[in-house]
Amino acid sequence: MKIVIAPDSFKGSLSAAAAAAAIAGGLRRVWPEAECVEVPMADGGEGTLDACLAAGGERRRARVSGAAGPAVDAEYGLLERDGRRVAVIEIAQVVSITDASGMAVPVGVRSSVGVGELMREILDLGVRDLLIGLGGSSTNDGGAGLLAGLGARLLGAGAQRGALVAPQPESLAAIEQVDIAALDRRLADCRITIMSDVNNPLTGPRGATAVFGPQKGVPPALVQRYDAAIAAFARAAEHAFGRAVADHPGAGAAGGLGFALQLLGGEFRSGAEVVADLLRLNAALTGADWAITGEGRSDVQTLSGKTPFAVAARAVAAGVPISLLSGGIDRAALPALGRTFAGCFSLVFGPGSLEDAMRDTAGLLADSAEQMARLRDAAGFGVRP
Amino acid sequence: MKIVIAPDSFKGSLSAAAAAAAIAGGLRRVWPEAECVEVPMADGGEGTLDACLAAGGERRRARVSGAAGPAVDAEYGLLERDGRRVAVIEIAQVVSITDASGMAVPVGVRSSVGVGELMREILDLGVRDLLIGLGGSSTNDGGAGLLAGLGARLLGAGAQRGALVAPQPESLAAIEQVDIAALDRRLADCRITIMSDVNNPLTGPRGATAVFGPQKGVPPALVQRYDAAIAAFARAAEHAFGRAVADHPGAGAAGGLGFALQLLGGEFRSGAEVVADLLRLNAALTGADWAITGEGRSDVQTLSGKTPFAVAARAVAAGVPISLLSGGIDRAALPALGRTFAGCFSLVFGPGSLEDAMRDTAGLLADSAEQMARLRDAAGFGVRP
Repeated sequence: MKIVIAPDSFKGSLSAAAAAAAIAGGLRRVWPEAECVEVPMADGGEGTLDACLAAGGERRRARVSGAAGPAVDAEYGLLERDGRRVAVIEIAQVVSITDASGMAVPVGVRSSVGVGELMREILDLGVRDLLIGLGGSSTNDGGAGLLAGLGARLLGAGAQRGALVAPQPESLAAIEQVDIAALDRRLADCRITIMSDVNNPLTGPRGATAVFGPQKGVPPALVQRYDAAIAAFARAAEHAFGRAVADHPGAGAAGGLGFALQLLGGEFRSGAEVVADLLRLNAALTGADWAITGEGRSDVQTLSGKTPFAVAARAVAAGVPISLLSGGIDRAALPALGRTFAGCFSLVFGPGSLEDAMRDTAGLLADSAEQMARLRDAAGFGVRP
Repeated sequence: MKIVIAPDSFKGSLSAAAAAAAIAGGLRRVWPEAECVEVPMADGGEGTLDACLAAGGERRRARVSGAAGPAVDAEYGLLERDGRRVAVIEIAQVVSITDASGMAVPVGVRSSVGVGELMREILDLGVRDLLIGLGGSSTNDGGAGLLAGLGARLLGAGAQRGALVAPQPESLAAIEQVDIAALDRRLADCRITIMSDVNNPLTGPRGATAVFGPQKGVPPALVQRYDAAIAAFARAAEHAFGRAVADHPGAGAAGGLGFALQLLGGEFRSGAEVVADLLRLNAALTGADWAITGEGRSDVQTLSGKTPFAVAARAVAAGVPISLLSGGIDRAALPALGRTFAGCFSLVFGPGSLEDAMRDTAGLLADSAEQMARLRDAAGFGVRP
């Protein structure tokens, strides 16, 4: 008997790897001999690095500029796949919105330059395959910082003509030209995969500043000014690269890192799909009898490409029934979820607080998975212990 | 495909019949053709009458004395089983601890005389088979009221010698003799089945007054006095009947109704077992593929003869896998419950308040049962819709 266990992380309480291990532990109480294949998943945001490294690879650390300037130690991953070395980058390792030191300065002077620095360090290793997760950024610099970190020069207009302009929202309006003569040439050989589910364009009412700026601390009064500044930078950058991508879906991801990475030839893919490929989920599902996925909370969004749905699509394609075990499930989504999942379950065993559920997520997952196994067991799936 | 659905009531929110119907509704969403046999269960306490009448029989009403004296309309049930007419009595219909008018007077002057009156009304119908559920009583009169209601005369001592003594805790100490010459003679032909899981003796530190008195409003200072008064009455009553039962297990049930009914030849049985027999649960389980039971909250007590366990024992004996679907489940009981149940599930879909769960118990049961069915379905049990 083979069971694939491929949950997302349970945000705020448990990593995907720990969740998978807990579920496997619960199943083994019922079927001690079962082959439980743990495939911790992620969606390109927080936890992606951990998930990708759970099955092997090398965790490294680089000292690069944080969002506020002072250096941070950013982790990244190195793996080998199909004879190629692959780097896994979480931009939140550099410019996280949960990093207090980065958030200590106004968003107007935060920059993503460290992300570019990190990419350079990885290029130095000879790696040319970059998987970059865009979730959880604190910056809104249009990706100007990333380009600067990779060698592009942002040059001023008017009185500042020819002078370097800082890659920060407060300065971007002064940019007349983006000089990419010194841009790292090794980027031309790179395959950059951008992991993000954000579809927003770079600027305008659906752009990065208008939609995501406020949660990063952009004051309402400055939204229009920063949006215009990013637009000015974007025109100059597009001119330099000879391609227009600001209106492409995802250009507005991570405060414009989606724009900058697309200028560099990066291609958007669903983070969950990238992780599933990297972790060879399809191979794991081959010949499996059952699969379980889950996440902190499942709702109708789950069906719009969130991790459990990406896992489910592959399980269904492989003919493997898949069940959902999440922290909580929005009942309104049950009719839709029911078309995909062979049962949707919450890990709780009765009414109670979210805090209680988050305090022992691992224990609850194990107990719940055990109950699910006992129910399947009764259906003749396994051998009753 | 045949599925037996035999839950207890979900106290405070849903009757057993409504719970069974909700679960069946959820299962039919997955298996529209399934034969869902609904057997609403009860444990002899509140809801027993409804459960017994859910599959047929006649609901009647009698006007008898309430615990405080003024009349109450008490419902009871009449069914026919194996050629005999059977009456189902819930003593809480007469002397309920949730009846405000009964509770308005002190427990010292409350009496169970109306229960005896109700039994007489039923004897008048020619019925001789009485199933009496003892849960939820407000009285603590040692069963003196019940005997008085059936014609026994409680006679005083000392200055009150020969005078009738009121069958109330405050008066019982004055009893010297119980005269059963006028006791209803038809009782001799009766088969009285007492439904209760209480094992306590009538008096003493484990007796009715010490253990259950306080929750009925016996002041701590009066526990010893009422206990002694009941003991005095009991000696006189045992003398009159020529049998000693005050120390028998269950004599202390329902404030001593268990004592009085045993004097009348009544035999204790688990309420759930009686109801299961009455509703022919074994026949329902024959040839079933799956069974589901449940209750408001399951814990280690569930394994000590509570309704779901009684149902489970019969299901296991019939070779039918049975799953538990309750409002909440004490995780500490899971290891023990897991030895019996093919999966223990709560009806909630995530953290939340008890109030929310009780507001839509039926909807939650249906949704949860549907998920359980989808999981079983995936195991090849049914046909995927």
